[in-house]
Amino acid sequence: MFLEELFATRSSRMTASEIRELLKLLDQPGLLSFAGGIPDPSLFPAAAFSQAFQGALTPENQAAALQYSVSEGYLPLREWIAGEMAKLGISCTPQNILITSGSQQALDYLGKLFLSPGDTALVNAPTYLGALSAYNAYEPNYDQLNSGGNRDAASYAKAAEEAGGRVKFAYLSPDFANPTGETMPQAGRQALLNLAEELDCAVIEDGAYQALRYQGEDQPPVLALEIARKGSIEDCRTIYCGSFSKTLSPGLRLGWVVAAKPVIAQLVLVKQAADLHTATLNQIAVHQVASQEFEGHVAKLRAAYGARLDAMLTALKEHMPKGVSWSSPEGGMFVWLTLPRGLDGADLLQQALKRHSIAFVPGQAFFADGSGSNTLRLSFSALPERDIIEGIRRLGLLLREEMTD
Amino acid sequence: MFLEELFATRSSRMTASEIRELLKLLDQPGLLSFAGGIPDPSLFPAAAFSQAFQGALTPENQAAALQYSVSEGYLPLREWIAGEMAKLGISCTPQNILITSGSQQALDYLGKLFLSPGDTALVNAPTYLGALSAYNAYEPNYDQLNSGGNRDAASYAKAAEEAGGRVKFAYLSPDFANPTGETMPQAGRQALLNLAEELDCAVIEDGAYQALRYQGEDQPPVLALEIARKGSIEDCRTIYCGSFSKTLSPGLRLGWVVAAKPVIAQLVLVKQAADLHTATLNQIAVHQVASQEFEGHVAKLRAAYGARLDAMLTALKEHMPKGVSWSSPEGGMFVWLTLPRGLDGADLLQQALKRHSIAFVPGQAFFADGSGSNTLRLSFSALPERDIIEGIRRLGLLLREEMTD
Repeated sequence: MFLEELFATRSSRMTASEIRELLKLLDQPGLLSFAGGIPDPSLFPAAAFSQAFQGALTPENQAAALQYSVSEGYLPLREWIAGEMAKLGISCTPQNILITSGSQQALDYLGKLFLSPGDTALVNAPTYLGALSAYNAYEPNYDQLNSGGNRDAASYAKAAEEAGGRVKFAYLSPDFANPTGETMPQAGRQALLNLAEELDCAVIEDGAYQALRYQGEDQPPVLALEIARKGSIEDCRTIYCGSFSKTLSPGLRLGWVVAAKPVIAQLVLVKQAADLHTATLNQIAVHQVASQEFEGHVAKLRAAYGARLDAMLTALKEHMPKGVSWSSPEGGMFVWLTLPRGLDGADLLQQALKRHSIAFVPGQAFFADGSGSNTLRLSFSALPERDIIEGIRRLGLLLREEMTD
Repeated sequence: MFLEELFATRSSRMTASEIRELLKLLDQPGLLSFAGGIPDPSLFPAAAFSQAFQGALTPENQAAALQYSVSEGYLPLREWIAGEMAKLGISCTPQNILITSGSQQALDYLGKLFLSPGDTALVNAPTYLGALSAYNAYEPNYDQLNSGGNRDAASYAKAAEEAGGRVKFAYLSPDFANPTGETMPQAGRQALLNLAEELDCAVIEDGAYQALRYQGEDQPPVLALEIARKGSIEDCRTIYCGSFSKTLSPGLRLGWVVAAKPVIAQLVLVKQAADLHTATLNQIAVHQVASQEFEGHVAKLRAAYGARLDAMLTALKEHMPKGVSWSSPEGGMFVWLTLPRGLDGADLLQQALKRHSIAFVPGQAFFADGSGSNTLRLSFSALPERDIIEGIRRLGLLLREEMTD
């Protein structure tokens, strides 16, 4: 169409994902899907939300709940979040916090804040697909954060300069990352901070799954480690992104950013220009539900999702053919499979849908450089244990068929 | 702070507005404020919303309401909007519609879709401040759409080329525009379409106030005129942005875009990357309230706001000193004052707050080129008539004092 010729250059980086198109075929009856990374809707605290929305819409309260509000976000919610952050070792005030419409929006705003075309973002391979989508709009170059021991700061800086910019930030999800489910050990977090110091770049810490640990010891967030080094969040280069999507509800679109005040102040301007503010009523309702029952609700989620993770890991051990390996997450929603070289995740998905009525996400989409065709992401969060076991059994059948072809 | 040195070049275009800072001083007791362009919260359909949220959060409905949903937006709401658009002469399907988190977000996404740095956006002088804020993030050049009869397409094209890009779109709010309250006559709309054809650029039609007409005849939207010319929305260069903020509630952040399918398809990708989707529950609730009582509710708003507009125009006639002129809106929320040259709106606001306990928005912020220091924006939507009359009386006193200084 003629208007397409008017689109900005960044549009060429914003293309439809074949995988997303394929996954639209998921509503076939009897399908067991490990594809979506979505919470189990039967675990939403719906009754508490119903009460909270009713309470916010009484004649005395409705005027504030339905009116415009400040771009920074609802102050009582920011105060509650500051309290939660303190429990993780992140001492901060509401002035260090911006409420966003989901943590996806935080990633978009941080791309907008830092990236000029040609600047470099360091990302893991694989990394969260949505982060790549968000950053792509700002036309960055990507370099690989987890590229093994042979890269020092100078080599990243040089590559970034050759790409026409500089390293602006390293992005990672240190706890139960999407898509691998893996957690970065504390030594790795410290090494990352050292690298960021040398590169003089920011660190974007995506804590979307942080609360969902089912086994093992809590790891301090990267931001907490940096505050411990420097004494104050105001001297820190780490920017923490949190989300209520995995704990309370994704459909309400509520997340937050924690950072030094000048970063938050500029993000407030970004938000004011981009959508004025996040829905007032949703912030009031989430504050109400979170302050009443966050801890108890998350404990319930941990028990339910933890049992599903166990079921998946046990079933993988039983049903996977030799040559297939997988991650051993301690939390989150995902297990990551690596298949023998030569197998292709996208081909496998087509066969899986057709022959075994199961679905998963082929791993290639999570690699900024398009590698990883022999990997799969399996989500265990939205299926009961018996379906997980049956689905993994079918996946085992499929892989045996394909590996003997 | 050291991270500020890492901000992208666009950040230099995203600065705090002095006016917004000044307007934070508005909570002094007894202040009569014509400043904010906000709906009267006593007119929100709160009871209907309370019912709608309750209905969406029952055990049968909650799973869909609190879960992730598609980037395009809730289909029944898009269907309802398509029906409303048809009443305005805009024949379209749900596939021509994207739901956004307020129409501010639509402006941001359209800037992102079209503007590469140095491209030109044509805007009126004055124009909606929020549009300039949204577009500034994409580092455009601005040229003046309403620059009188002496500019032809060639002169716009040449200026755009000299600025390093091309004219990507003309942005305007043809009905009861923020800040002037003025409405573009049909001949002007046709001339705009002719200009856009010659320039081969898009037209962004901001219909935020479209439903709020209190007198005079409805004007067809620019998009309706273009569809009448071309036969189908698929051949149109006009992109219409609508909003529920002025009719149902701004705090729920719901707006929409209507355009040819390829434009919507690319905007869906923009939205998917930027915030995944607008809050599911809010879309369900707004659909429920809109389909039940939109027309009746808007009729109530028209009666209430129309009486306030009358009160303001009558009071202006009575209290303004000679040399002050003002617009005569037929709808919306604003009247625009032009003062004798030499008077400065920002200085006046300081005096108004200090000496007469009234507030308004100095007009200069609405001009992309920083002119218009002798103009003021007055909003009549949030004050009862007696306060409007008293506030205008005080403004008359202030202006008399300042004009005889």
